[in-house]
Amino acid sequence: MEGTAVEQTTPITDDEIFSWHEGGKLEVSSSAPLDSARALSIAYTPGVANVSRAIAADPGLAARYTWAHRLVAVVSDGTAVLGLGDIGPRASLPVMEGKSALFKAFGGLDSIPIVLDTTDVDEIVETMVRLRPSYGAVNLEDVSAPRCFELERRLIDALDCPVMHDDQHGTAIVVLAALRGACTVLRRDITSLTVVIAGAGAAGVACARILVAAGVGDVTMIDSKGVVHAERDGLNPVKLELAAITNPRGLTGELSHALAGTDVLIGLSGATVSEEAIAGMAPGGIVFALSNPDPEIHPAVAAKYAAVVATGRSDYPNQINNVLAFPGVFRGALDAGARRITEGMKLAAAEAIASVAANSPGGLAATRIVPSPLDPRVGPAVAVAVATAARAEGVTA
Amino acid sequence: MEGTAVEQTTPITDDEIFSWHEGGKLEVSSSAPLDSARALSIAYTPGVANVSRAIAADPGLAARYTWAHRLVAVVSDGTAVLGLGDIGPRASLPVMEGKSALFKAFGGLDSIPIVLDTTDVDEIVETMVRLRPSYGAVNLEDVSAPRCFELERRLIDALDCPVMHDDQHGTAIVVLAALRGACTVLRRDITSLTVVIAGAGAAGVACARILVAAGVGDVTMIDSKGVVHAERDGLNPVKLELAAITNPRGLTGELSHALAGTDVLIGLSGATVSEEAIAGMAPGGIVFALSNPDPEIHPAVAAKYAAVVATGRSDYPNQINNVLAFPGVFRGALDAGARRITEGMKLAAAEAIASVAANSPGGLAATRIVPSPLDPRVGPAVAVAVATAARAEGVTA
Repeated sequence: MEGTAVEQTTPITDDEIFSWHEGGKLEVSSSAPLDSARALSIAYTPGVANVSRAIAADPGLAARYTWAHRLVAVVSDGTAVLGLGDIGPRASLPVMEGKSALFKAFGGLDSIPIVLDTTDVDEIVETMVRLRPSYGAVNLEDVSAPRCFELERRLIDALDCPVMHDDQHGTAIVVLAALRGACTVLRRDITSLTVVIAGAGAAGVACARILVAAGVGDVTMIDSKGVVHAERDGLNPVKLELAAITNPRGLTGELSHALAGTDVLIGLSGATVSEEAIAGMAPGGIVFALSNPDPEIHPAVAAKYAAVVATGRSDYPNQINNVLAFPGVFRGALDAGARRITEGMKLAAAEAIASVAANSPGGLAATRIVPSPLDPRVGPAVAVAVATAARAEGVTA
Repeated sequence: MEGTAVEQTTPITDDEIFSWHEGGKLEVSSSAPLDSARALSIAYTPGVANVSRAIAADPGLAARYTWAHRLVAVVSDGTAVLGLGDIGPRASLPVMEGKSALFKAFGGLDSIPIVLDTTDVDEIVETMVRLRPSYGAVNLEDVSAPRCFELERRLIDALDCPVMHDDQHGTAIVVLAALRGACTVLRRDITSLTVVIAGAGAAGVACARILVAAGVGDVTMIDSKGVVHAERDGLNPVKLELAAITNPRGLTGELSHALAGTDVLIGLSGATVSEEAIAGMAPGGIVFALSNPDPEIHPAVAAKYAAVVATGRSDYPNQINNVLAFPGVFRGALDAGARRITEGMKLAAAEAIASVAANSPGGLAATRIVPSPLDPRVGPAVAVAVATAARAEGVTA
């Protein structure tokens, strides 16, 4: 893969995919073998009664003697699954199982998929409150916008534990890390970039927020009706809030107009971007075409104009993959005993990912602006950075 | 342990118990390693999208390509935990984790503990309905009587999957199996026995029902107010129903009176039974003193009068342990695709346990009326018997 901007790996067949998924992708097992009468008497009756009695007397001991305190609930209602849309909770479960598998592989965290047969925000919050003794953190996943914004906020208010909608913040963290990597390769100052974000869904909104928080001064959001600006009719509260912190040049109109002369395109729309629009960007720019499974523009076409191209796919270079962020973010939050996940913790996660990339063999390059999703250093580095930020901000228990 | 009626094994220390429970007792892992870009592309994006799309088009495929269809939710509100009472969901979690570990070890089934911060029957049912796409069966656990009867019935009505309150039916199945074993050893016909059940909670009620269903003609229930009979004031609906199928001799009064001349005592009360009361039973009888951690009467004292003595403890012979039943019952029900667990399936489970005991090395003996909880033949034998019964009864999907 090294040395060329775009090179595809061997395609994966449906046979290979479906046989891998046969019976599901997760297993629950005992952390110690139950193969003797003694083991049974310790792990179950009568021994377990002593542990239950101790927790009843001092509820704080639950954190030490049960798995719940460090268990991540991967929660979805199946309303915005990958690029597939509202396919329902049952069809979303393979994605949630995959997520749980990634939590274990890259964060060393146990997690369980919770897919819900309701799309009502009140009911989802109520359900997670009732389940609260069963888990230690909530990874919200594949919930449609704008409901996801309200749901995340309501869950954060209702629960005394880390809650993060990964489609928003996991993506935003990795985009920021990748943009830092690209800036280093191109010797650009991140604060001087003009950035257009195509797509004002969950990921687009969170990307705009984190880029503004990271000091990028010129961010413009585009949705299906064009530039998001305060004078537009019918903006929802989230977009109205974004209009206030983005679009400093007061642009209006459609994507190709906004893209003209811009340094960076971040595509999170599911829509297509024309070659002409890319050609109109400032020379030597950056294109992140992150829609899955089909990028907004083919990376080979984007590479004709942009100096750095990234996608969301594992079969092209520069994969902007949430797995670089969420395992370490939750691991760090849980390690620190954080009660919530702050903007500072997210910024620290992005810094950590960028640092790992910069310290990789061969260093940064136009086709190597982020670490490989398989790089085992990323999860621990992110976890340490996030835990440190949590302690510094005083959000720990 | 062989050859003596009662012999205790080395005591287990608190240190040993608490260090075993450190961090909890369960782990979730990926059923295949995610250690290559290819694996990541199959188990997560872009590959997983094909599986999600297929399930969206044909929801029946969820049973094949997700883990939910065979996942047991171990559900509790922590209101009747072991012999400890209403200690709440957090303190109940070590028990539920142990249960999940046993499901894996003896039934080969994955399961997750769901401990709920509500004791309201409506809310618990509503919650499990919302979570329905996440699991394939419900093992209800440690819910107080008489709420547990209504809750189990309501869940069975609301959910199209196997639901069983193990404290009721798991115990009842193993008690019936043990009674069959004792009858074989003592050359008694089970239908001719007079049986007193001390305790009319979850386990006592279910035991009475399964013994009557198995043909035991003379069963008498005792609660804290004495014999349960139809003329008593203030009986709840469950006890009123029991009064109609038990106590054929029309007994009234207290336990020691009912026990006089009786063949079998099944203690499920948490209360104490005096040596005098045991001494008044028919000679050569059977005492199951099943309260945990403290049996109703010390097994060594009971053995002075009874020919067969059993307890619920792993450190005495003849342990009446639910683990002989529930892993195989759920495994069989799920293997058959059963939508509920019938009386016939429970009776079949008891027969299977009794058969394994009879076919053990050395055969049945007064100190060997049930198989060891560690006997690896039990789970598969119960599963096959239960699945066969389910198919015969036509409760499969």
